[in-house]
Amino acid sequence: MKDKYSGLLKFLILLLVIIIAVWYFVPRTEKETAMPKYVLVIHGGAGTILPENMSAEREAAYREALGQALAAGEDVLKAGGSSLDAVSAAILVMEDSPLFNAGKGAVFNSEGINELDAAIMDGATLNAGAVSGVQRIANPVLLARAVMDNSGHVMLVGAGAENFAKEQGFEFVEPDYFYTDYRWGQLQKAKKAGAVILESDDDLIFLNKDHKYGTVGAVALDNHGNLAAATSTGGLTNKRYGRVGDTPIIGAGTYADNNSCAVSGTGTGEYFIRATIARNICALMEYKGLSLEQAAEVMVHDVLIRMGGDGGIIAVDAAGNIALKFNTTGMYRGFVVAGEEPVIGIYKD
Amino acid sequence: MKDKYSGLLKFLILLLVIIIAVWYFVPRTEKETAMPKYVLVIHGGAGTILPENMSAEREAAYREALGQALAAGEDVLKAGGSSLDAVSAAILVMEDSPLFNAGKGAVFNSEGINELDAAIMDGATLNAGAVSGVQRIANPVLLARAVMDNSGHVMLVGAGAENFAKEQGFEFVEPDYFYTDYRWGQLQKAKKAGAVILESDDDLIFLNKDHKYGTVGAVALDNHGNLAAATSTGGLTNKRYGRVGDTPIIGAGTYADNNSCAVSGTGTGEYFIRATIARNICALMEYKGLSLEQAAEVMVHDVLIRMGGDGGIIAVDAAGNIALKFNTTGMYRGFVVAGEEPVIGIYKD
Repeated sequence: MKDKYSGLLKFLILLLVIIIAVWYFVPRTEKETAMPKYVLVIHGGAGTILPENMSAEREAAYREALGQALAAGEDVLKAGGSSLDAVSAAILVMEDSPLFNAGKGAVFNSEGINELDAAIMDGATLNAGAVSGVQRIANPVLLARAVMDNSGHVMLVGAGAENFAKEQGFEFVEPDYFYTDYRWGQLQKAKKAGAVILESDDDLIFLNKDHKYGTVGAVALDNHGNLAAATSTGGLTNKRYGRVGDTPIIGAGTYADNNSCAVSGTGTGEYFIRATIARNICALMEYKGLSLEQAAEVMVHDVLIRMGGDGGIIAVDAAGNIALKFNTTGMYRGFVVAGEEPVIGIYKD
Repeated sequence: MKDKYSGLLKFLILLLVIIIAVWYFVPRTEKETAMPKYVLVIHGGAGTILPENMSAEREAAYREALGQALAAGEDVLKAGGSSLDAVSAAILVMEDSPLFNAGKGAVFNSEGINELDAAIMDGATLNAGAVSGVQRIANPVLLARAVMDNSGHVMLVGAGAENFAKEQGFEFVEPDYFYTDYRWGQLQKAKKAGAVILESDDDLIFLNKDHKYGTVGAVALDNHGNLAAATSTGGLTNKRYGRVGDTPIIGAGTYADNNSCAVSGTGTGEYFIRATIARNICALMEYKGLSLEQAAEVMVHDVLIRMGGDGGIIAVDAAGNIALKFNTTGMYRGFVVAGEEPVIGIYKD
């Protein structure tokens, strides 16, 4: 009798183990496939970018750098990392490349100094960090992250931002780290043209018809369903000393909110600030029920053009929809969705 | 025959002149009475402001200063001036008073320096100007206005902003212009408390339970139907060198758009930046159809509190509705509507 019950007990325990095992493994697998697929979108600046002005070598170099940035960000997302870490990783590659107007390749201001701006924002918490006017930090996006995580503030500028960087153990580069012949040449050209343009009281922003806004940016949705955005720039060639553009202004060039979307912008920053472009794309989704595509279209092709500004944005929403919009002839850009091949673009399609 | 016609012609010309005269004068008068009535709203900071902690003399001094600021702004509006000029005029009075944390009465940062921020925005054009971290300009709101009108940029910070001020012929004050025993004492108290709080890795912002955010601000609707907003501050006592709060961030502490409303904020600036409070109040009206009252309520009593921030806002919409909202125990504030007596308040009603 006892043995009979014992056999039944063993059978029941075995059954229980099987049920638990099935419950443990099967739903886990289902959950994983039901998780949001990660998405990463990047830009390397918008402007007058035409195939006829681009050598095959230069185009190949841009495509390679954009591909490397996407790969660096995707590595983080594929490993289950956060969207915050992914946008940082993608931007680091572009900051370290001399091709983009951020980090190493930053343009010169009117006094021949490189002043760098960056911002990062976490859509899950609305935490944000930004720096402006730093001159000796190779990767401003990492300093923006440190401001977010460790300063108790959102935005630090100039010498105050560099004091904080020192406290945080950042390495300082010599100012000539940012020197490139190409950017120095641009400043000389701008200064020549600027003298004329200043006489007519016009705006330095419209100095060249073949302008480019070489800001870099990244937005991502990770496997945990969290959005993040980050942007980094050297600003405008020949800009005034101390000028702050849209990049480090939360809501202008950078915004992320899990309730709606994550946006990074590039263009005539003053217009992005005045129209709070990044936040407005999210607000049009959240308050007016527009799709990401529609909201981005309104801001880039309606509001921005009506105001006289140009540029573009990249965005991703909480459902993984993406938008890459620009009202210029080109925008260096790329995106990758989990399980798919990365896509890279430069000109208008 | 010719004379007869000539008489008729004269009569017809006279009739025509009378008709034109009537058309010219009568509708003009009607138009004037149908014009929007001007409205001006100001604040002098929000925080823990309780009647039991306030001497009768101090309260009287605040009420007098707020009354003077309202009168200065109303003079502009009554004379048919612009909302932009009115908000400037009101803020000038508060910047020149030692009672408010702006201009003369600015608090000290952690290095014992006064760093001042200000912004101004024109709702008719979305033009905006902002400065941050200026140390020797008595009236930062005027420098923000100059940035808007003459720099081609929206935001200038630090030494770059002061270089621009020099070009624009601004007078420079000595740093001790901003010295007041009261503010210096606050810094010493904050430093003592801060040392403790830094050990526990907490945030300096929450240093005192009896904190006050002494930002000043003004929003106005003028007789031409145009909205404007401006804000000016000395920031937070014992703040980090180089910290930028919400005041000079377009969309955070300051925003104006004729399509919706004009807002000026005061409070824990970091939260105002992260939630783009000022722009969001306007966006809730424009995109979601909320009233100004409802939109302000959502941002100040829902979003801000949920995030852990406190403070208040003043706002006026294109129809002349006003909102004065705060989630603290008090906010120095006042408003005046064309043809009515000004109203001044300090505590919760």
